[in-house]
Order: sequence, then structure tokens, then C-alpha cells
Amino acid sequence: MSSRVKEILSWYRSDNNAVLANIYKLLNTGGLAGTGKLVILPVDQGFEHGPDRTYAPNPAAYDPTYPFELALEAGCNAYAGPFGQIAACGHDYAGQIPLIVKLNNSDSLHSGENPVPAITCSVRDALQIGASAIGFTIYPGSSYKKDMYEEICELGEEARTYGLPVVIWSYPRGEGLSKEGECGIDVVSYAAQIACQLGAHIVKVKPPTAHIEQTEAKKVYEKYKIKIDSLTDRISHVVQSSFGGKRIVIFSGGAAKTDQEIFSEVSAIHAGGGFGSIMGRNSFQRKKSDGVELLKKIIAIYQG
Amino acid sequence: MSSRVKEILSWYRSDNNAVLANIYKLLNTGGLAGTGKLVILPVDQGFEHGPDRTYAPNPAAYDPTYPFELALEAGCNAYAGPFGQIAACGHDYAGQIPLIVKLNNSDSLHSGENPVPAITCSVRDALQIGASAIGFTIYPGSSYKKDMYEEICELGEEARTYGLPVVIWSYPRGEGLSKEGECGIDVVSYAAQIACQLGAHIVKVKPPTAHIEQTEAKKVYEKYKIKIDSLTDRISHVVQSSFGGKRIVIFSGGAAKTDQEIFSEVSAIHAGGGFGSIMGRNSFQRKKSDGVELLKKIIAIYQG
Amino acid sequence: MSSRVKEILSWYRSDNNAVLANIYKLLNTGGLAGTGKLVILPVDQGFEHGPDRTYAPNPAAYDPTYPFELALEAGCNAYAGPFGQIAACGHDYAGQIPLIVKLNNSDSLHSGENPVPAITCSVRDALQIGASAIGFTIYPGSSYKKDMYEEICELGEEARTYGLPVVIWSYPRGEGLSKEGECGIDVVSYAAQIACQLGAHIVKVKPPTAHIEQTEAKKVYEKYKIKIDSLTDRISHVVQSSFGGKRIVIFSGGAAKTDQEIFSEVSAIHAGGGFGSIMGRNSFQRKKSDGVELLKKIIAIYQG
Amino acid sequence: MSSRVKEILSWYRSDNNAVLANIYKLLNTGGLAGTGKLVILPVDQGFEHGPDRTYAPNPAAYDPTYPFELALEAGCNAYAGPFGQIAACGHDYAGQIPLIVKLNNSDSLHSGENPVPAITCSVRDALQIGASAIGFTIYPGSSYKKDMYEEICELGEEARTYGLPVVIWSYPRGEGLSKEGECGIDVVSYAAQIACQLGAHIVKVKPPTAHIEQTEAKKVYEKYKIKIDSLTDRISHVVQSSFGGKRIVIFSGGAAKTDQEIFSEVSAIHAGGGFGSIMGRNSFQRKKSDGVELLKKIIAIYQG
Amino acid sequence: MSSRVKEILSWYRSDNNAVLANIYKLLNTGGLAGTGKLVILPVDQGFEHGPDRTYAPNPAAYDPTYPFELALEAGCNAYAGPFGQIAACGHDYAGQIPLIVKLNNSDSLHSGENPVPAITCSVRDALQIGASAIGFTIYPGSSYKKDMYEEICELGEEARTYGLPVVIWSYPRGEGLSKEGECGIDVVSYAAQIACQLGAHIVKVKPPTAHIEQTEAKKVYEKYKIKIDSLTDRISHVVQSSFGGKRIVIFSGGAAKTDQEIFSEVSAIHAGGGFGSIMGRNSFQRKKSDGVELLKKIIAIYQG
Repeated sequence: MSSRVKEILSWYRSDNNAVLANIYKLLNTGGLAGTGKLVILPVDQGFEHGPDRTYAPNPAAYDPTYPFELALEAGCNAYAGPFGQIAACGHDYAGQIPLIVKLNNSDSLHSGENPVPAITCSVRDALQIGASAIGFTIYPGSSYKKDMYEEICELGEEARTYGLPVVIWSYPRGEGLSKEGECGIDVVSYAAQIACQLGAHIVKVKPPTAHIEQTEAKKVYEKYKIKIDSLTDRISHVVQSSFGGKRIVIFSGGAAKTDQEIFSEVSAIHAGGGFGSIMGRNSFQRKKSDGVELLKKIIAIYQG
Repeated sequence: MSSRVKEILSWYRSDNNAVLANIYKLLNTGGLAGTGKLVILPVDQGFEHGPDRTYAPNPAAYDPTYPFELALEAGCNAYAGPFGQIAACGHDYAGQIPLIVKLNNSDSLHSGENPVPAITCSVRDALQIGASAIGFTIYPGSSYKKDMYEEICELGEEARTYGLPVVIWSYPRGEGLSKEGECGIDVVSYAAQIACQLGAHIVKVKPPTAHIEQTEAKKVYEKYKIKIDSLTDRISHVVQSSFGGKRIVIFSGGAAKTDQEIFSEVSAIHAGGGFGSIMGRNSFQRKKSDGVELLKKIIAIYQG
Repeated sequence: MSSRVKEILSWYRSDNNAVLANIYKLLNTGGLAGTGKLVILPVDQGFEHGPDRTYAPNPAAYDPTYPFELALEAGCNAYAGPFGQIAACGHDYAGQIPLIVKLNNSDSLHSGENPVPAITCSVRDALQIGASAIGFTIYPGSSYKKDMYEEICELGEEARTYGLPVVIWSYPRGEGLSKEGECGIDVVSYAAQIACQLGAHIVKVKPPTAHIEQTEAKKVYEKYKIKIDSLTDRISHVVQSSFGGKRIVIFSGGAAKTDQEIFSEVSAIHAGGGFGSIMGRNSFQRKKSDGVELLKKIIAIYQG
Repeated sequence: MSSRVKEILSWYRSDNNAVLANIYKLLNTGGLAGTGKLVILPVDQGFEHGPDRTYAPNPAAYDPTYPFELALEAGCNAYAGPFGQIAACGHDYAGQIPLIVKLNNSDSLHSGENPVPAITCSVRDALQIGASAIGFTIYPGSSYKKDMYEEICELGEEARTYGLPVVIWSYPRGEGLSKEGECGIDVVSYAAQIACQLGAHIVKVKPPTAHIEQTEAKKVYEKYKIKIDSLTDRISHVVQSSFGGKRIVIFSGGAAKTDQEIFSEVSAIHAGGGFGSIMGRNSFQRKKSDGVELLKKIIAIYQG
Repeated sequence: MSSRVKEILSWYRSDNNAVLANIYKLLNTGGLAGTGKLVILPVDQGFEHGPDRTYAPNPAAYDPTYPFELALEAGCNAYAGPFGQIAACGHDYAGQIPLIVKLNNSDSLHSGENPVPAITCSVRDALQIGASAIGFTIYPGSSYKKDMYEEICELGEEARTYGLPVVIWSYPRGEGLSKEGECGIDVVSYAAQIACQLGAHIVKVKPPTAHIEQTEAKKVYEKYKIKIDSLTDRISHVVQSSFGGKRIVIFSGGAAKTDQEIFSEVSAIHAGGGFGSIMGRNSFQRKKSDGVELLKKIIAIYQG
């Protein structure tokens, strides 16, 4: 075991051996094995945004074997997706790549001011289709937060019992926040903190902007001169806000952009001490060979 | 086992043997046995629309033995209906035809903007009246989607445990959608995708129109020139949206129309790679011999 | 066993022996034993309308032994009531008359536009106070229908497990319907159908009027010239709507009226193929000897 | 056993021996032992109205040992209170006086138009702190009645299983009623009936006024000339409305008043056939010796 | 065991030995061991107010080991915090200091008029991370009080079963109260009473002001001349309102203020018979050595 992996595992000593073994597996798979960094392929956009917006740019991806193949060829640490599509062909890839099974999902055919996902997979079903971890989305800022926090509290307890670590997608959204505020540095830091408090072993947030949403927070940023000018600074701050850097925090890639933008964002995440990227649309909405190439370049940045 | 059935079963390898055995049975019953195509007789309109609108055109159908007789004589793959009417005479037909027991239903004596069916049968009761599969309706687009998705998540898990495959009726409806949008190609594709993600082994949707409901989807259809001019094209697209064709997708017949319209619709479904039809009012709201004839002609199309 | 009872029991062959035994008991008790007809004494108005409106016309009825005595003397098939009043003196009548224990009830101290009863007795408690069947009220047309249908789905499953048949009071009511519509022929037929679909062994509805509530239904009544002019016709239609006559359907007596009106209504129910009457206020809101006389005359009509 | 206690117990013969034993104990404790009458000390006002309004008139009562001492010295049949305060010192009085543990409570820091108490103690906890019966408050007339009735349905079933009788505080309140109507004779009678139907072994209501709230009830009171002029008449009517006198009905004392008013009210309750009083603020909001004296005088009236 | 600890434990004799053992441990740890007084370090502001407002003034506190170190060095009786941060490093401090694990939490990214926390940790998880007690927040005055009271009723029962005492944070808040009323003496007394009634072994409230919120309470304060002029008087009144002083009541420190203000507040709490302080932001939002010094001075006051 590399010393970095050893160090990271030391933060999770309250957890049982089976949970540690799965974190170990996530950290020792693919091109970043042993570095303590992760590049994860998430494909849940078919559920979240619909199949057309998700797969039409690269019709090969309509097939649920596609993300398995892409993640394997590129050397990702894990592939994350909803129950249905993993169940559809997971049998052929059993044991080949760690799976993060998303236990809840939203769709875009109905959306209210205060979002709340539906639970779409049980812990038991996640186990049976081969999960190495569960994924769960919370929307801090939504009036339904009590529901979501209590769902992950229960599901997390059950998951840990069976040795599954918990990955929380923490996406601020809802009537408590402005649109711009969803990615504000104070809000993203807070969202990371909430995920940690709810027991996340791995936290996923969006790269934060320099916007500060809450008046009380603004005073603190000014008084204590918290550095947030560069993305690297902001990533550092989010990592610090995640139990002083003692939790794995990874960052999403967001909507498609130019490769150069991606690389410079990833470099900033790396420089700021972020633990990695979860890169979906940018990687699978292009030809597979191009997707593999992109992911390998990202992996190279984190190796550097 | 025909090679086509073998191929179809290969898509469900994550499932246990008992689930596979029931899918096998559905695919090897009636006039389409071994072809990989299905014609299913659904009779739940007594609950959904009331007995008068359902049975008055052919009063023999008031008797719950009627759909058993019709499905058997016509050579359907299965008969789908609610608990009460199947329980009422299923004892006399035990083992003769696969049954898809609907676990939830709506009625028309009260209807709000956001529909949500009631659960009207448990998995255990479905088993005891001889189910070979469970049926469940979701209304994507309704503000109650969280309830429906979570219900089928739980019921589906229980059903699979006992070897029952899951058939999802995915009917977009509710405040998130316009009336025209309910059958729009983007919405129907999305509805099929959601059903797949929720673990449906068989998906039932309505034949889609060329309407595109969602602005974000419209851009994609235009940019990638997705073919949706003919019904055949649209069926192909829905099948592709169902895990790249690796899920059984069947299409409903809708309200009564001329036989010629039915045949040409069925031909388009067949040509587009659809897996079959679920044909209710058009088949049982006429004399039985006529209903049998109609269904046999539809079966012949799918055999062709 | 009379051939008529044998025939009726043949409709319930999906049910277990214990359920059949209790239906057998209901059909073989009292003055109508063996005829396939039923006259049931319901006394739940103390809960539903309050004690004054219920018992003041005949204060002897304040005592919960009264309905036992009345039902026994008159030769009813069963007595139906809520938990409390049956528990209060059921020990003295154990085994003497079949009991239908109502599992839910409403009161009149609060009433909203969309009624929903409270569950006031468990299946286990019903069993322990000697139930031969459970009774349950649904209000199709209420926005709370999902709650009610799911409650009876669960309670019905539990009841059948323990050998208790299910009697559903199906009373359309709520924002989906006009006041006149509650007794309209299309609505009552639909209400009977819903009860059957929910697994009722015995359905109780109100005698329908010739009013037609729903536009879609009106077209069907006209197109197919469904006969609804006389009460006898309408009773026939409701019976037909209850699985083609293969479910026991009985009719309530409603508010107090003249004896002559009662007899002619009962005669119409009999002539139309109805299975009997459930006759509360008209029978117990008078001197006991008069109540016995009235019930015996009604029984005589059904024997005729 | 006195013949009166024997008679009263005969009304509860459907109950198991353990429930009967606890009713027996309630009827054979204190100054009214064997008379079939009860004087109960309720102290839940600390929760319901706050500690200041409750205990400031007699600060000794802030101590939770106070009601035990008062009830014992005065010779009450039982002491009724919430979980916390009984748990706080019940160990020192175990076995000395029957306890009615209130399973639900309201407070006055928030109150809406439609009240609904919170469940604040489980049946198991009530048992462990030595309960001889459970107490439960319902508010007929509130839009939350379904919740309350279903809660007591479940808790009552559990309590009886463990031998605990059920005491229901039935206090009409909520948007269905006028303020004056809460104590109207028709409403109080109805409230007593509902409690009986829900399985109460002992019913607690407020002394009714001559007001009649509901139009339909008014017609009945007039038509049948129900006597309600004197409090004695009204008490009789409430007792009659409680299963023809076959349930124990006791009456609350309400807010503090002059001793003379109390004695004349108690005399009327006694004369009308009421089974006793539950007397809180009037007894504990004065010096203990005065409280004991008051309660002894009330007991003397019921002995008379 | 000191005589004071013996006396305090005598108030909890209804509880099982394991609960008593944990109360014993809380009272016999740190600088105040044996005195019957407590100084507790609470750190849940990362969840409640966000990481920036909480930790930026002293960045060392971002690390979840910080509160353990601070509480140990200062000689606190216990450290109270949410699941996530205690789980993150509790393994290294197991057995060294009693832990109060907060079972519910709120965050500030969404807040409505009527607050209600989410349950964020189960009793079983609290046990597994080494809890000596559970903590729970209620907001009397909120329209969600039924939810909160019922949650702590259930969780408290479970916790006591496993030997964990219950600490209730009772913070009046919600549409039933004015902003000023939240700390009014009548409201704080009432909040303490509610916590006691719900079974709290230890009650935490805010130091009350002389404001009186409720009209009915005001009359009582005036009539009985309840002394509330000084903070010492008000503390005495709150202690009296907590079962006549037979429950442990501690007081929060609130937002940061000058040390002198803290010391004089603590002196008043001590003089009024309060059982101690729970001191968060004032102690950890400064250099650790300063925080230790402050806490030691507070401890010295309670020793005096």
C-alpha cells in the first residue's frame, strides 16, 4: 500500500474493515492507483436529462456496456450510475471495475422550485449488482432537505453495515438560494461540510466560483481575508472545509466545454489539493477513442 | 430455445433464474412463441375508465372470464389486469396463460392535475393469484413522481426476489407537460429510459408523435438530425433509448380506431424494431370472434 | 348446501377455505339461509352521525346489546358495526350471529370537501371480537382515494390471510363529483366495479338514480341504449357491472322513509338481481317488535 | 368484590384478564374503593399550559413528587400525568397508587386552528414506569382527526395486549366547531360516543352546557324532547350516549372556580349517574392540606 | 461518589443502571468531577452555520480532532457534536472523554418560518462511535413540533434501552413566537419543562431575558410576584420549572462576546443554581491556549 493511500485510510479508522477494503479498492484501481487521486466516470444523465440530450452526441453510448468499456479502457478508478443501466450488463464486467451505484435520481420531466430526488435503488439491490460504494444526491437549499438528509442517514447506516462506503453528491439548489449562489464558494464549502457531517466517505461538489451568497458568510470572508481569487484557492478552501482535508473531495466536470478549459480546471483542482474529478458528459459524448484520450490526459495531470 | 429468445434473455443475465424463467415463459407462449415478439391483452379499463365505457360495447366482456378466453383463443403471450378481476376467475385458467398482475391503478371519478395511482395489490397477492410478472404504472411529469418511483423501486425488488419480472407502463402526464407533449418523441423516449433505469424488464409506452416538447431536447434533435419523420423512425428511436435496444419495449394501442389504422400502426412498430403491442379496447370491445380475428392478424404482422 | 349457495361460492374459488367458510356462514344464517340473498343489520350511525340522531328515536338502541337482539330476532344474515360497540357486549353473543366488523369510520364533527375515514380497528382486533368478515368504506371521488384504496389493499390481504372475507361500502363522494352525481347510475356502477377490483367479496352501494354524471359515460349509455329507466333496470346494471354478476352486491336503505317505499325499493332490488339489503335506520329507529316485523317482511320479499 | 364493581366489570367481558385486573384496581383504590365511582388527580398542565400558569399558585407543586403525595393523602383512585414527570419520581411510589400515563400531549407555545397532540410516550415506556392504564387525548372536530383516531387505534391495541385499559380524553375542538359548540350537549355526547367506539374503557369529557351545535342534532333534541335543562339531565344524557351507560364516563373540573361551584357541579355529576371527576387545577393549585380537604369533600359527595 | 453526585443520581432512579452509569460518567469527568456541575464543549456550528462562520476565526478548528483536544486539555465534562465529525476521528480518543452525539441537525442554506431539524444519526450509529449520551434539538413554537416531539420520544426510548441518557436542546422558535419571545423567561421556563416531560435527563436552554411573551403567563408572573429581575433570579426560575430542580439544566453561551460578559453570565448561572454551561463559539473561535484558559476560568467559577 502506498503511503498516501495509507494516510487516507487512516482518516476512516472509525469504519469497519469491509468499508475500508472498498475505499482501498477505489484508491488502487486504474491509472491513478496508489496516488490517492481519483477519476470517476459518472453516467446518470440518461435519467437526469433524458436519453437524447445524453447519448445523441455519441449514439454508441445508448448501450449500457459503453460506460464500462470507456472506464476500463481509460483506467478510471470507478464507474458511477443508476440501478437499471448497471443491472443491464453488469454481469459481464463483474469484478473488473469498482461500481458506485446511485441510490437516488431525479428526472427533468417535472421540476419544482425545491428539488428532491426519488430513491431508485435499495442497498440490497446495489449489493446484488456488485456495488463497491453507494452514491446519493442531496440538494442543500431545498425545502425538502429533511427528507434527503434522513434518507441518506438511514441508507448510509445500512450501506456501511454491508461494507459499502458512501459517496454524496452535494448540490445546493432550491428556494433558499439564488441561481448564482448554487456555485458560490461559501455555499459549496458549506455543502461539502454537510456531506461530511452526514457521513460521506467521498464528497462530490461542483468547482466553486468567487461569488459569496450569504451575508453572514461574506463578513467572515472579508474579516479573515480568506483567499478565493483563483480556482486553486477555492478548491483548497473547499478541501479545508471538508474536515480540514480529512475527507476525499472530488469535483464534477459540468456541461461540455473545450478540452483546454477542462485541463486547466483539472490542473487547478489538482493544485488546490482536490482529490480528483468525476467527468461525465465531456468524456462520453465524443467518440470512444477520443473519450479515452481525454480521460487519460486528465489522469496524467493528477499523476503529475 | 430460439436464438432470438436466447439473445433477449442474454440482456437480463443480472437477474435470477426464476425471473429469467418467467421472461422465457412470456416469450414462448401463444402465436408469437419463440419470435421475441409479444402481443399482450390488457384489460384494466374497468378500473381506469369505468365499466360502462369499457364493457358496454361488448357486454360479454363484463364477465371476468372473457379476457382469459379471448387471450387464449387469439394466442396472446399474456393477459394483464388488476387484482380483483383476475382473482375472480383465475382458478379456472391457472397455468394456461401468463398473467401480468397490475399492482397499481387509477380511476376516473377523481382526477387532479398531477395523477398518482393507488397500489391495489401486493406482490404476495399477485403471486398467489398466479402472476408471471407484475405491472406498474408511472406518470413521469407528475409532481408525485417521487412516490411512484419509490413504490416501484420497493415493489420491483420484492417481485424479483420471488422471480417476477417487472413490466412498467410509463405514461408521461402531469403539470410538467403539455397535453401534446405527453406523446412527443422526446418525452416518450425519456419515459422509456426512466422505466429502464427503474429496473423494468418490459417497458410499455405509447406510440410517439413527431412533436418535441422540451426546448433542450429540440436543440439536440436538430443538431444531430435524429430521424423522427415516420412512426417507424420514432419507434426505432424509442427502442434505442431503451438501453440501446437491450430492453423489451412494447406499444399500446390506445383508443378504438379503424382496423386499417391499427394494422398500419402495428406494421410501423414491427418495422421500427418494437417488440410488440398491448392491445386492449380495440380487441375486446367487439364480438369475440372479431376480437380473435383482429389479434390474430396483428400476430401475423409480427410473425412476418 | 343449496345449489344457489354452491353457485355463489364457485365465484370465489381463488380464495382460501377459511374465507369460503365465512362466506358460507353468511349465506346460511337467518331467514334467508340457503337462498343466496342477504339482509344485514348495520349499526354504525352512532359513530357516523352521532348518538342523538341515531338512537333518540328509539332509546333502547343506545344499549349495544340492542342490534344483536334485533338481528337475531329478525333472522338477519349478519350484523355490521364498529369495534367499540361490538366489543362492548360481543362476548354474550359469541357464535350466535355473523359479525362484520367495520375497520374504518368517519364522524360528523368535522367534514371536509374530500372525505376520508379513519382506521378504527385492526384485523387482529376484529378477529378477537369474533368477526366473520371485515367491513371497509371507500369514497371514490375524494382526493384521498389513494389512501383509502391502499388501506383496504393492505387490510384486505391481512384479513383474507386469516380467513375473513372483505365487505366494501363504496360511496362516491368528494370534489370529483356533484351531489346528485353521488347516486348517478354511471357513478354507482363504477363504484361497484372499483370495490370488486379492490378485492371485495361483498359490495355495498346505494340504489342508483337515473342521473348520469360523467359526459363520457353519457355517450355510452346513449349509444348502447343501456336500460336505466326503472330501479329494477338500474339494479341489474349495477349487478352486471360487478364482474358480470359474479360478486355479491347489496344495497343500502338510506335515511328513514315510509315502509311502503322501503318494500317497493326492496322488491326492485330483488327483481333486478340484487343480492340483498343492508337496512339500518329504518329498522332500529322504531320499537323493537316493529323493527323485527319490518325486517321479516323484507326477508319475505327476498324469499319470494 | 362489591356488587357494583362486579356489575361494571361485566361490561368489559370482551377484555382479557389483565385489563380487567387493572380496571378492578382503579375501582378498588382510595376513598371510593368499591363504589364504582372515581376521583382522579390529573397533572399534565405543566406540559399543556406551561409551568408558570400551572405551579406558580402553589410552588410546592413544581416538584413531581407533589401529585403522588396529594393523590395518596386525598384517597384518589389514580393519578394521571405525562411520561417525564411520572418517570422522575415514580420509583418511590411504585405500587402505591394506580397511574394513568398520558401517551400524548400538546403545549401552548404553538397552536393552530386544528389541534393535534404529539405522542410523547410509548406503551412500553408507560409499562416500565408502572402504568395501570394509558391516557390519550383526541380532538374530534379537528381536521387531524384521522391521525388521532388511528394513533389510539394502534396504541390501544398494543396497550390491551399488555393488560392496560384505555382512558380517552375526548375534547371536541377545531375548525368543525364553534367555541361555544365545544361544550354543547350534542357535541359532548357525540365526543363520548366516539371515545367508546374507539375502544375507551374510561371516557373523560367536559360537563356539557345546554347549547346545541349541530342543526341536524337540534331537530332531534326538539322532536324527541331530550331533557337537557339541568346539568344533571345533561350528565345523564352523556352517560346514556356512552353505550347506554355501559362505559365509565368521568368529567373534568376545568379552570379554577369557587369551591361551592365545584361541589354543586360534582353533585350534579353524581346525581346524573356520572362515574366521577378528574380534578386537577382546583385541587393542586392551593396548599396541600386545602387540596386534600377539597378532594375528600368531593369523594364524600360521590360516596353519598 | 460525592454526596452531590449521589443526590443528583437519586433523581434518575427510574432509569436503568446503564443510563445511570453514563450520567455518573458525565458528572465525574474533567475539572468539575464530583461537583454536580458541568462544562460541555459543543461543536455543531459547522453543520448549523457553515464551516466559514464557524472555523475561519481559528482555522485549526477545521480539523475534527480539535474539539477533542480542546475539551480534554480544558477539562470539560463532555464534548457534543454531530455524527460525521465525531466519526472522523473518534477512534483516536475512544474512552478519553464522554461524547454527546447530536442525533439531529439543521443547516442555514434553507430556513423556513417553522424550523425542524433532520435526523442525521441513528442511536445505533451513535453507540458505535462511542456515545455516552444522545443530543436532540427541539423547537417548541414551530408548527412541526409534533414531528420533533415524536422523534425524540422514539429515539429517547431506544437510547435509554441501550443505556444512553438523553440531552435535549430546547430552543423555542417558530410562528408561535416573536423573535424577542424566544428568550423570554416564560418561554424558556416552558421550554425547559417540555424537555423534562419528554424525558430529558439533561436540559439545555438559553439564558432567559426578563421579557414575558404570553399574556396568560404575564398575569401569573404579576399575581404571584415571580422574581425575574436579575439573571440569577431567572436562572433559579428555570431550574425550578425543571421538575422543581430535579433535572440537570445547563445554559448555552450563545454568540461570541467579551470574556468579562461570559464570566458574569456564568457567575449568574452558578448563583442561580444552574448546573453548568455549554460553551462553543466563545471557546473554540480563538487560539487553543486561549480557549483552554477561558474554559478553565469558567470551570473555576463553577468550582467556587
